[in-house]
Amino acid sequence: MKLARFTVNRQAYYGKLQDGRLFVVEGDIFGSYRITEKSYAVQEVQLLAPVQPGKVIAIGLNYQAHIGEFFKDPQIPVEPVIFMASPTAVIGPGEPIVLPYPEHETHFEAELVVVIGKEGRDIPLEKTGEYIGGYTCGNDVSDRTLQKLDQQWTRAKSFHTFKPLGPYLVTGLAPDRLRIQSRVNGQGKQESNTGSLIRGANELVSFISKIMTLYPGDVIYTGTPAGVGPLVSGDICEIEIEGIGILRNPVE
Amino acid sequence: MKLARFTVNRQAYYGKLQDGRLFVVEGDIFGSYRITEKSYAVQEVQLLAPVQPGKVIAIGLNYQAHIGEFFKDPQIPVEPVIFMASPTAVIGPGEPIVLPYPEHETHFEAELVVVIGKEGRDIPLEKTGEYIGGYTCGNDVSDRTLQKLDQQWTRAKSFHTFKPLGPYLVTGLAPDRLRIQSRVNGQGKQESNTGSLIRGANELVSFISKIMTLYPGDVIYTGTPAGVGPLVSGDICEIEIEGIGILRNPVE
Repeated sequence: MKLARFTVNRQAYYGKLQDGRLFVVEGDIFGSYRITEKSYAVQEVQLLAPVQPGKVIAIGLNYQAHIGEFFKDPQIPVEPVIFMASPTAVIGPGEPIVLPYPEHETHFEAELVVVIGKEGRDIPLEKTGEYIGGYTCGNDVSDRTLQKLDQQWTRAKSFHTFKPLGPYLVTGLAPDRLRIQSRVNGQGKQESNTGSLIRGANELVSFISKIMTLYPGDVIYTGTPAGVGPLVSGDICEIEIEGIGILRNPVE
Repeated sequence: MKLARFTVNRQAYYGKLQDGRLFVVEGDIFGSYRITEKSYAVQEVQLLAPVQPGKVIAIGLNYQAHIGEFFKDPQIPVEPVIFMASPTAVIGPGEPIVLPYPEHETHFEAELVVVIGKEGRDIPLEKTGEYIGGYTCGNDVSDRTLQKLDQQWTRAKSFHTFKPLGPYLVTGLAPDRLRIQSRVNGQGKQESNTGSLIRGANELVSFISKIMTLYPGDVIYTGTPAGVGPLVSGDICEIEIEGIGILRNPVE
C-alpha cells in the first residue's frame, strides 16, 4: 500500500494511493485506521513528507562503492556508523532545497529510508518486521565543506530543507532488492540497488534499537551508493526507488 | 527561580523550590503558569529530568584544557562542533546510569546545559536571552571505546541513561561565571568555571538556531572541562554547578 500525507485547502490528510487518486485515511496510520471513500486526484493536492519524525537517524558508509569514493583508504566500518540529523530539516516532495552557503560544495545522496511504525527497544533481528511501518525515499543533502571541517556530520546534514522525504510511505515492500537512482536535471547520477547495502534495513533497526528506543514516525536513512555530486541553484534533483516512486525537489 | 519536575504517587508535576519545598506550578512553565499553594517537601518526591527534550544537541571541544586531554595535537575548532544524541537517553537525578558494555571505558562529563524556552530560528546573538528558558546540569556520559571506533559520536553518547539532567531548571541565572565540578564517590574530578567556555551559551544558541529551529524543552549540552574519567558499576557520580545544584546518579 502507498500512503501519502498531503494538504488540500490548508488541511492535512493521509491518503491511500489508488489509480492516481488519494483516498482519505482516518485514524492512526500506524495503529487503527479506515480508508474512506473521499478522494482527491494526486494532481490537485500538495504532497508533504509522509511522516513528521521525532528522530532522524542516519547511517554512514553503508555501500562499498560509496566508501571508495569518500575515503582514500576505503574500509568497511566494523559496526554501522550512526549519526543524527535535526527533524527540522525534513521537507516534502516539491519543496525547494535551500543552500545556506552556495559557495560550499553541497551534495545530493539518494537513500532508502526506513519508517518506524511501532515503539520498540532491543528488537531482535527476527522481529524487526513488526516495527517497520514502511519505506520511503530520502535525500541526505550534505554540505561537504562543513562535513570535512566539523568531522562530526550533524551540522553539514541538518540545515533547514536538507532532509527531503517522500513521495509515499510504502507498506508491505521487501526492501532488499530495489533499484535506487538519483538524477540531476534529468541526467543520471547514482545507480545502484539496495541489495548492495552492507547492512540492510532489518539489521539496522535491530542495531539502533539496542542504543535508543524507536518511536512511530522515526526515520532511518540507510546510507547512499556511489555517484554523489554537487547541487547548485536552479537544479532539479530526483531520487527514485523501485516500488516507492520519485522524490523530486528543486534547488534554490 | 528553581523549578523541578517530580512525581508524587505516580503523578508528575512541576514545582517551584522555596525553603526546601516544591510549590506546584500549574500551566506551561515556558508560557503562562501560576504557582499554587500546594507543596511537597523535596525529600518526599522523586525528582525527574527537568524537561523532556525533543532534541538533545551537544557541543564538543569547548574548553581548551579538555581539548588538550582529548587530542595529541590540540586545536580549537574554527567553528563550534555540534552533534546530536537521542532524547531517549535522558534520565533524572538519582536514576542509575546503566553501562551497556562494562568492559568499555565509559566517562562522566560535567556540562552546563541550556534549556530552550521559546521556538526560534536564526536568532541574533543579542536576542538569545528571550529564547533561553533556563539552565541545568548535565552529565554527557560517553563510551570512549565506541566514540573512537565510530568517529561519529552519536552512538557512544546516546545509550539509554547516558544523558542525566537536573536537578533543577534555573531561570534568571547569568551563565558566564559559574563554578562547575564533578565528583565520583565524593572524590573531586573536574573543577572549572563556565567562564572558560570557548563559546558561551548565547553564542551557541544563536549559532545552532541558524542550522535548526529550536523548540521549548530542547537542550544544548555546552561541552565539558578537563578532568574526565571512567565510571564503573557501584560508583556515585555527581555534577555540580554553582547556582543550580548537584546532579547525582549511581552507576549500575
